Amino acid sequence: MKLYNYFRSSAAYRVRIALNLKGIAWEHFGVHLVKGEQRSPEYLKLNPAGLVPSLVDDEANVILQSLAIIEYLDEKFPQPVRLMPSDALARAHVRALSLSLACDAHPLNNVRVLSYLTKELGVTDAQKSAWISHWITTGLDAFEKSLAESGRPGTFCFGDTPTMADCVLVPQVFSARRFSVDVSQYPRVSAIDSHCNSLKAFQDAHPSKQQDFQP
Amino acid sequence: MKLYNYFRSSAAYRVRIALNLKGIAWEHFGVHLVKGEQRSPEYLKLNPAGLVPSLVDDEANVILQSLAIIEYLDEKFPQPVRLMPSDALARAHVRALSLSLACDAHPLNNVRVLSYLTKELGVTDAQKSAWISHWITTGLDAFEKSLAESGRPGTFCFGDTPTMADCVLVPQVFSARRFSVDVSQYPRVSAIDSHCNSLKAFQDAHPSKQQDFQP
Repeated sequence: MKLYNYFRSSAAYRVRIALNLKGIAWEHFGVHLVKGEQRSPEYLKLNPAGLVPSLVDDEANVILQSLAIIEYLDEKFPQPVRLMPSDALARAHVRALSLSLACDAHPLNNVRVLSYLTKELGVTDAQKSAWISHWITTGLDAFEKSLAESGRPGTFCFGDTPTMADCVLVPQVFSARRFSVDVSQYPRVSAIDSHCNSLKAFQDAHPSKQQDFQP
Repeated sequence: MKLYNYFRSSAAYRVRIALNLKGIAWEHFGVHLVKGEQRSPEYLKLNPAGLVPSLVDDEANVILQSLAIIEYLDEKFPQPVRLMPSDALARAHVRALSLSLACDAHPLNNVRVLSYLTKELGVTDAQKSAWISHWITTGLDAFEKSLAESGRPGTFCFGDTPTMADCVLVPQVFSARRFSVDVSQYPRVSAIDSHCNSLKAFQDAHPSKQQDFQP
């Protein structure tokens, strides 16, 4: 499979984790977001929004949007581990946890939004940092409370096997640390993140392990 | 079922459409976002993020996040119409269309973000309007192109029956018009929106038909 990808993109990082958990071989196709490669005519033909990731599977199907890609992979490749629970209510909880970060936290801090804040609204670096911290903190705060109320405590976000929610949480925590948000204020989130990062599938998906990584 | 709801919330509007398409009876529980009722201790116990909608089903299960609610309803109540296709690839396309607005357009323009722009960053009304238009236009632009490339032209977003993507598109178009975005520049989006709004399930979900509506 081909994954159009940028080492630091949280959305791409989610899909890398899912591919690794599934044991699916994938090829890295770099789309350098800071250089603007996502706006090249070729890439826009693949992904009209000019965002990463995009997956091209072995039958040349193009699948967009990280959460849609993860559910697709889970349905097509149920082995060796299911990333979505088999019960409808449990599945809804995993989707809700995933969406709470993917819709309500991450999009506010992606490259194009931060660029708009700086270029169009002229915000200062300090204001930009406060904006980033505010939305990460708001998102992780709600996530921590949702974990407490889920009734499914475990070593992962939902029970004792990894789900789509873990694929979303770990990149969000990486991003939080990068922007100096104190993650230790969220004990459940911190414990799950540590546990996930002890596993090779998560380690191999880390931005620093990607071939386009730049410090 | 109980739907915690605000007439103008796009995310709540999506779920109202889905409930109506399914023919499920639901009770309106108002959460007045402008008055701040989403931050009441009682509501935060139900929905730790303080967002609408929240669904409480007839077995007292609480389900959060509009897209998770819609997929849950579709799985629990497959009749009279399926909102998700039966094929995995088709399902991925419907999810990707839905997420492209639910993640990449709508969250940038919700009440709390606009409030942050005004109160914390001191943006002017003109700057706020430009911000809103920019993200709606960016989202609908990509959506229109994705429809063109989906290979599944039809009277709805994906073929000739309504799916989750239509539940997401119609509220986004309502919001676009409210903020004076010219929707006629998107011919596929406009045609689908008109077709959807000719149906009673969509009409009854419209903000102006809700009991908490205020002009």
